[in-house]
Amino acid sequence: MTEKGGSRKLWGGRFGRDLDESMLAFSESTGPDSRMIGEDIWGSEAHALMLAECGIIEAEHLREILRWLEKAREEFEAGRLTLKRELEDVHMNVESYLRDPAQAGEAGGRLHTARSRNDQVVTDFRMRLRVYLLDIREALAALRETLLELAAEHAYTVMPGFTHTQHAQPITAGFWLSAHAAGLARDDKRLAAAYGRTNRCPLGACALAGTSFPIDRQLTAELLGFDGVITHALDAVQSRDFAVEALAALSMMMTNLSRLAEEFVWFSTPALGMIEVDDAFATGSSIMPQKKNPCAAELARARTAAVSARLMELLTLLKALPGGYNRDLQNDKPPTWEACEGALATLEVMTGMVRTVTLKTDRMAELAGAEFACATELANYLVRERGLPFRDCHELVGSLVAALASEGKTLDEHERVAELLAEAGQEISAEEVAEIVEPGACVRRQQSLGSTNADQVAEMIADLRAALATDRDATQEAHAQLQAAREETARRVAQALGGR
Amino acid sequence: MTEKGGSRKLWGGRFGRDLDESMLAFSESTGPDSRMIGEDIWGSEAHALMLAECGIIEAEHLREILRWLEKAREEFEAGRLTLKRELEDVHMNVESYLRDPAQAGEAGGRLHTARSRNDQVVTDFRMRLRVYLLDIREALAALRETLLELAAEHAYTVMPGFTHTQHAQPITAGFWLSAHAAGLARDDKRLAAAYGRTNRCPLGACALAGTSFPIDRQLTAELLGFDGVITHALDAVQSRDFAVEALAALSMMMTNLSRLAEEFVWFSTPALGMIEVDDAFATGSSIMPQKKNPCAAELARARTAAVSARLMELLTLLKALPGGYNRDLQNDKPPTWEACEGALATLEVMTGMVRTVTLKTDRMAELAGAEFACATELANYLVRERGLPFRDCHELVGSLVAALASEGKTLDEHERVAELLAEAGQEISAEEVAEIVEPGACVRRQQSLGSTNADQVAEMIADLRAALATDRDATQEAHAQLQAAREETARRVAQALGGR
Amino acid sequence: MTEKGGSRKLWGGRFGRDLDESMLAFSESTGPDSRMIGEDIWGSEAHALMLAECGIIEAEHLREILRWLEKAREEFEAGRLTLKRELEDVHMNVESYLRDPAQAGEAGGRLHTARSRNDQVVTDFRMRLRVYLLDIREALAALRETLLELAAEHAYTVMPGFTHTQHAQPITAGFWLSAHAAGLARDDKRLAAAYGRTNRCPLGACALAGTSFPIDRQLTAELLGFDGVITHALDAVQSRDFAVEALAALSMMMTNLSRLAEEFVWFSTPALGMIEVDDAFATGSSIMPQKKNPCAAELARARTAAVSARLMELLTLLKALPGGYNRDLQNDKPPTWEACEGALATLEVMTGMVRTVTLKTDRMAELAGAEFACATELANYLVRERGLPFRDCHELVGSLVAALASEGKTLDEHERVAELLAEAGQEISAEEVAEIVEPGACVRRQQSLGSTNADQVAEMIADLRAALATDRDATQEAHAQLQAAREETARRVAQALGGR
Amino acid sequence: MTEKGGSRKLWGGRFGRDLDESMLAFSESTGPDSRMIGEDIWGSEAHALMLAECGIIEAEHLREILRWLEKAREEFEAGRLTLKRELEDVHMNVESYLRDPAQAGEAGGRLHTARSRNDQVVTDFRMRLRVYLLDIREALAALRETLLELAAEHAYTVMPGFTHTQHAQPITAGFWLSAHAAGLARDDKRLAAAYGRTNRCPLGACALAGTSFPIDRQLTAELLGFDGVITHALDAVQSRDFAVEALAALSMMMTNLSRLAEEFVWFSTPALGMIEVDDAFATGSSIMPQKKNPCAAELARARTAAVSARLMELLTLLKALPGGYNRDLQNDKPPTWEACEGALATLEVMTGMVRTVTLKTDRMAELAGAEFACATELANYLVRERGLPFRDCHELVGSLVAALASEGKTLDEHERVAELLAEAGQEISAEEVAEIVEPGACVRRQQSLGSTNADQVAEMIADLRAALATDRDATQEAHAQLQAAREETARRVAQALGGR
Repeated sequence: MTEKGGSRKLWGGRFGRDLDESMLAFSESTGPDSRMIGEDIWGSEAHALMLAECGIIEAEHLREILRWLEKAREEFEAGRLTLKRELEDVHMNVESYLRDPAQAGEAGGRLHTARSRNDQVVTDFRMRLRVYLLDIREALAALRETLLELAAEHAYTVMPGFTHTQHAQPITAGFWLSAHAAGLARDDKRLAAAYGRTNRCPLGACALAGTSFPIDRQLTAELLGFDGVITHALDAVQSRDFAVEALAALSMMMTNLSRLAEEFVWFSTPALGMIEVDDAFATGSSIMPQKKNPCAAELARARTAAVSARLMELLTLLKALPGGYNRDLQNDKPPTWEACEGALATLEVMTGMVRTVTLKTDRMAELAGAEFACATELANYLVRERGLPFRDCHELVGSLVAALASEGKTLDEHERVAELLAEAGQEISAEEVAEIVEPGACVRRQQSLGSTNADQVAEMIADLRAALATDRDATQEAHAQLQAAREETARRVAQALGGR
Repeated sequence: MTEKGGSRKLWGGRFGRDLDESMLAFSESTGPDSRMIGEDIWGSEAHALMLAECGIIEAEHLREILRWLEKAREEFEAGRLTLKRELEDVHMNVESYLRDPAQAGEAGGRLHTARSRNDQVVTDFRMRLRVYLLDIREALAALRETLLELAAEHAYTVMPGFTHTQHAQPITAGFWLSAHAAGLARDDKRLAAAYGRTNRCPLGACALAGTSFPIDRQLTAELLGFDGVITHALDAVQSRDFAVEALAALSMMMTNLSRLAEEFVWFSTPALGMIEVDDAFATGSSIMPQKKNPCAAELARARTAAVSARLMELLTLLKALPGGYNRDLQNDKPPTWEACEGALATLEVMTGMVRTVTLKTDRMAELAGAEFACATELANYLVRERGLPFRDCHELVGSLVAALASEGKTLDEHERVAELLAEAGQEISAEEVAEIVEPGACVRRQQSLGSTNADQVAEMIADLRAALATDRDATQEAHAQLQAAREETARRVAQALGGR
Repeated sequence: MTEKGGSRKLWGGRFGRDLDESMLAFSESTGPDSRMIGEDIWGSEAHALMLAECGIIEAEHLREILRWLEKAREEFEAGRLTLKRELEDVHMNVESYLRDPAQAGEAGGRLHTARSRNDQVVTDFRMRLRVYLLDIREALAALRETLLELAAEHAYTVMPGFTHTQHAQPITAGFWLSAHAAGLARDDKRLAAAYGRTNRCPLGACALAGTSFPIDRQLTAELLGFDGVITHALDAVQSRDFAVEALAALSMMMTNLSRLAEEFVWFSTPALGMIEVDDAFATGSSIMPQKKNPCAAELARARTAAVSARLMELLTLLKALPGGYNRDLQNDKPPTWEACEGALATLEVMTGMVRTVTLKTDRMAELAGAEFACATELANYLVRERGLPFRDCHELVGSLVAALASEGKTLDEHERVAELLAEAGQEISAEEVAEIVEPGACVRRQQSLGSTNADQVAEMIADLRAALATDRDATQEAHAQLQAAREETARRVAQALGGR
Repeated sequence: MTEKGGSRKLWGGRFGRDLDESMLAFSESTGPDSRMIGEDIWGSEAHALMLAECGIIEAEHLREILRWLEKAREEFEAGRLTLKRELEDVHMNVESYLRDPAQAGEAGGRLHTARSRNDQVVTDFRMRLRVYLLDIREALAALRETLLELAAEHAYTVMPGFTHTQHAQPITAGFWLSAHAAGLARDDKRLAAAYGRTNRCPLGACALAGTSFPIDRQLTAELLGFDGVITHALDAVQSRDFAVEALAALSMMMTNLSRLAEEFVWFSTPALGMIEVDDAFATGSSIMPQKKNPCAAELARARTAAVSARLMELLTLLKALPGGYNRDLQNDKPPTWEACEGALATLEVMTGMVRTVTLKTDRMAELAGAEFACATELANYLVRERGLPFRDCHELVGSLVAALASEGKTLDEHERVAELLAEAGQEISAEEVAEIVEPGACVRRQQSLGSTNADQVAEMIADLRAALATDRDATQEAHAQLQAAREETARRVAQALGGR
């Protein structure tokens, strides 16, 4: 049987021709696969150890296989093992390295017993994705912490709250920033769930039906740091819902980031001037040096589109795909890697931007009471103190505000406000008016659970910090589990090799 | 202050003109809102009860409000309360009904104390969505059960397993069907998580900052059957991640359904003829009456596109939206309702289609061993019994198969197989060959965890049934919680009214 | 042969059972189809006239068919012909009406000769879509005209131009608004192209292979107002690229509208206050009556997400669909209708909003020179008049601006600017500086083709108006062609019936 | 003024700090920009030539600029000019090369006169995209030609036509393949339209408002091979509809390719076995060497998802972006390049796959008449020859087919068919029946315009070939125009340099 070069040799004698060059370029996946060389080698080590443990291969073969896998790992870690396009994917590259007659040779040919590329590739995919997810969760934790720190500093910094991008009511900067932290906490919950469904081991499902060899799938799963096996063999090779779930969680997180970014863009416009993005996250103009373009925030918005498009790509790719493995599934990895890398980069930049932003608290205070933002509190006062129906109070205050506006006055003209109230039959002294409509007082008066009052904000920040600590613990434990499994595999490899 | 018709009156005296007719048509939401009239009334009842409990409104006002809310509910339940376009949305319709001078009048004007449309609408939204999610989970449970029942019946029905839509290895129909049930079980987990994040109460967040009235948000949350409050007021009014999460879970579920549907389409083609869809889920041709178009499956595929597009719609809608409430958020409901209704209809039809499908077991058996599907087992035999390396065995069997194919023979010509094996240095009797390559035997021989072997399939079915029972219990408990809360609200309403 | 009710009777005797109720609900399309009842009847008239013309049916049968088709049209136009769900679609409803023994009866059974639902449905689809496209083009023309009118009024209204949402250079409002008109002109070109590819007649393609009857496809195409036939029968029934193209054109147009809408939202914030949306397109707050939420613009942004999602839905629906007609294709119409109706409504509202907007020209002027927006012109002056390299001038002016900013001064402090320039070795008098950095002068000085200079803007407006007139002529001609074809069909129908 | 490294120096003295490393990585675009180095240099040459022509820079400066631009081009063409990340983008890299004091130095600082990165980047983008579009049109032409060649060879090859993936009527392979060619011809029309709107020159729009220098935009446009200028400066810098249009055209084309790919997958399953994909476009199995996985087709399906996702990405990115240049727009290029490269690779592979596919004509013929596919023709015969209503004939034949099916017979049992017809009152001889239901005869009998009859197919192929020739001519002319412009620029550069 002649060798025909490339991975063709793995398909035995029938294929008369090599792949067309255009087809090779179209179908090889060494680019995306290069992110999971370490995973592929680790997977093969665990598989080989298990095969020996179960008596499927012999100790001497195991040693040969492990010896050359270790060598491959060394080459890889030294940056010398680069994937050859003509070997198409990471699996063929590693196996071909092994089966080199000068290396493991014949023993290498025993490694693929009770395994198929179908279960192998999805094992590598899950192993690599779980690391991305942990990295993202850590980066997200850093952003949450940064937001909460800044929020805590600004629990008393009054600023305008908006609806419809119009002034609505005074709030505090601490309230504003902690709202984002609260939303991002849910994103972490979704990422954690995606991690849980990702970290199940499909290895041993083989082509689609399982195998007639007496393998021990639990053992491989443990050696690879998985939380357990994904039992059903056909389900294991055909399903990619874990990646869809991860990308959905990332898309939602990015959408949340895009909303924070949008606020950074607008709050830093000259017209509002409430924040100033640090030089390190902005670009300028050679000619208008006062100008600072909030490019980090703009690019974060743009990246959001890229991530949600990757989710759509994966859903469209999977739609109506018949069962078992189809080659289409090879294209599950590029959108997944791109989404993960886009999310990671965005988190890092957003964290830096938030950490270094300057809040212009004077300008915030100046805007906080503008545009009659405290009118609601005046109406609420009437409801509360005078027992009038809410709608009537709102109409009364509405008329009052309209009158002020037509006179070019604001609620800060307390005497005039008192006069107008009196005309409407509500005697309130100018001093009292002053107290009612002062933005800081408005904020302090909000007392309901979750409101912008500093005590409430402090409590929310405390709760969000506690949740953050818990999430970080979970991430660290997950990391530790992977690390321990990696070490246990290494220990067993060393043991097997030591027995040589 | 003159009434200007429509909801304009709620905005007080300043607006000089009514909405343009095109703008009214563009902005009113009575169509989508009509799905949540009951929720809106319930929400108002709970809010009113809480206001009285906290001493914010008086008992007599409470009675007036509740009396007319009950009336509104009766009208609604009798189908007589239809939403008026010119009142724009469900909230204004209900409030306007109440404030009619002939009805609660002035007292009705007190209901909106410590509440805003911003928190009210997202409360209604969450209350309606949670019901959809429970309905969907129940419909999904029915499909899972149906698949598992059919799978259990066919634990021994041998059929071909495919990869690349090409024959790969023999499996059983029970294995095939239970793989789908396994995938759908994860969809339920995602729906359950979405339910958990949906069922949190935003009421009391008011416009965005909370309120200065001493409200009890926990009480409202309990009366409305929520699992708790969504604390941060700004987060509560601006976030829609719960809907995105629900639509992401539905998109993945639909994608799984589309893959099952695709298999139903192709398995029922004349060329394969492995299943026959029941008349009740197919359409025919007037001229080729033997023809049966698997329309239910085709339409399920199409519906998948509609659901994932709704997810994309929601993500795009939210992208880069600044904080607080923006009117864009009004358009969160149409895609959500459409996705839920599409998913429900698809589940119902798919369940009916699976429940009534006929498996043509003879044809399945005939195809199971075709296309040398048992060659893998022959190679594995050599690995196992002769201790040869896997790759060598595969090459040997590959050459053997190629030889058979060139002679127009199959693996069923056991004598010839034995001859070819002998030529390759592997003596195996024709009888033994027959035993090795019989599809049923191949299936039986798979022994690994999660493999197509009947025992494994039986265990997986048992596990999936146990998980299904757990999921159903959870759904029923959730339903019961909502029902109990509804009854508790009714009890308190009756008590308040009885005290008149 | 017994009737089984519903459209089942059309499939002859084999189907033992009616459709499952869930399946009927899932598969019937009377809702979306109700938009094309008129088209379906017209299509049948033309088909019948052609069949008679070609000698395939006899004059007396033609008369019976036409008589009852006219009757159906009358019923439909009087609002009495509503589609019955159990007859599934518009075609079966119309045919069933006809074949009623009390009506055309047996003759009705001849109408479907040389026709299939496969070509009939796509004919109706194209006929209805082309009308939507013309309506949209007209609505778009109205918006373009409105933008150009407002632009022409404001050729000299100076305002700030933005990049990165930061002040960049002074422009005019006429320049700003005409830019949107320029972009929308290209959208019309794309819609026109989509119209051209939509308005081709597939009728006569039959199920997929054409027919053995000697039909005259050109005749039907003419009677139905098409620009020609879509020749290839299989292509005609399986392709939906015309709808994708239409939705792509609409998605781009909506994206352009969303950008205009975004500017309306932000320009009408109190911080900028450059425009005021009319009451008829805004909503207010009961408590802050000065507040005006630009809801029309917000909802336009939201609608954009809905339209581009429909494009995605259609692309996903079609992806990897095998050839010929598949039932999935039934779901091509809902996203198409929704996209068209969303686009139409958005155009109408945006046109009204632009038509009635108030430009606050004083505020625009005030902001035009803010933020050193004229610094570029000062640098350009140095390049032009002093022959210095561009980069050097920009650095020089940059330093100057930085110095001014640190002193809390602006470019309007001409003496100080002159001083600083002198320090940098460039003597320019304060008077000259004043002339250089006056926003209006900056605008006037822009002289390049397409620049913000009033003459350039006037020329662009003239060109855009000319293009608009041409586009409107094309739309009107297309409308006229449809009308003429409709009348010709009616004339022939009358002639045929008159011969009774 | 100290140099701070990177492009910071271009923003003058104010920025106190360099970009954060994470921000640099996030914001630099040298990867995507590396595809348009040649375009950037060409654009600068043309701009410099124009500046000199208009008297804005002097001849000696022009020479210095051109000399070093030529040098840069040489370096680039020799693969020695690679973009430095810290210089962020292609423009800064080229300009920085030029301004090196050892190179053009001060003169290089004059090149950016009357230009901004805002107009420069979109000029480069359009220049690069137009080349991709031409390359794609050529690759598409090759596929169309290949399909038409194969179609022409198989004008008489009878095969089954499908609807609902069920046998419907006999067609020919020529008819099948030419249908795809017909659909792809429309894709080319859309690509041509996108090219037309892409190939307009924005250079000279400057930052957004045009310039006060007396530039000649027509001249630059001509030197760069554009069909004209995009006049409105603000429109020119803010619009990206040309890229959306290109991606929409590509998405539709890919969707069409995915449908052809789907048919290749299914037609090559063992169950149908109507085609065999060549070894060069398939992969095999080491153990089932007869197995051939149609990977090229599977990967083409998958790539479709990637391209339509890029369209969605671009639409989402642009949605609600305010006017002028925003940094988000930088991310327009990656999805565009990826879509173009994905489309090109898919076209190339699909062309190779179609060119080398084997049609198994015997198997096609065998399947053509199966499943009563000729029953329609029998009914049509009765309509035509016996004057019966269509619906009645179809019911009659339906009953006949049902009877045959219940007897396990087919339409090929002509005697029995004749008997059953006689029972139904229609005397037709067995010989006549044979003639009616022979698949080849059925095909020949289709006579309508665009039907599957060989003459019709031949005419359609001729028309499609003529259209292809026209399209190719247009592509070649466009290529020639670009080439001529490139040469004219080179000529003028040489002339300017020669004058040194």
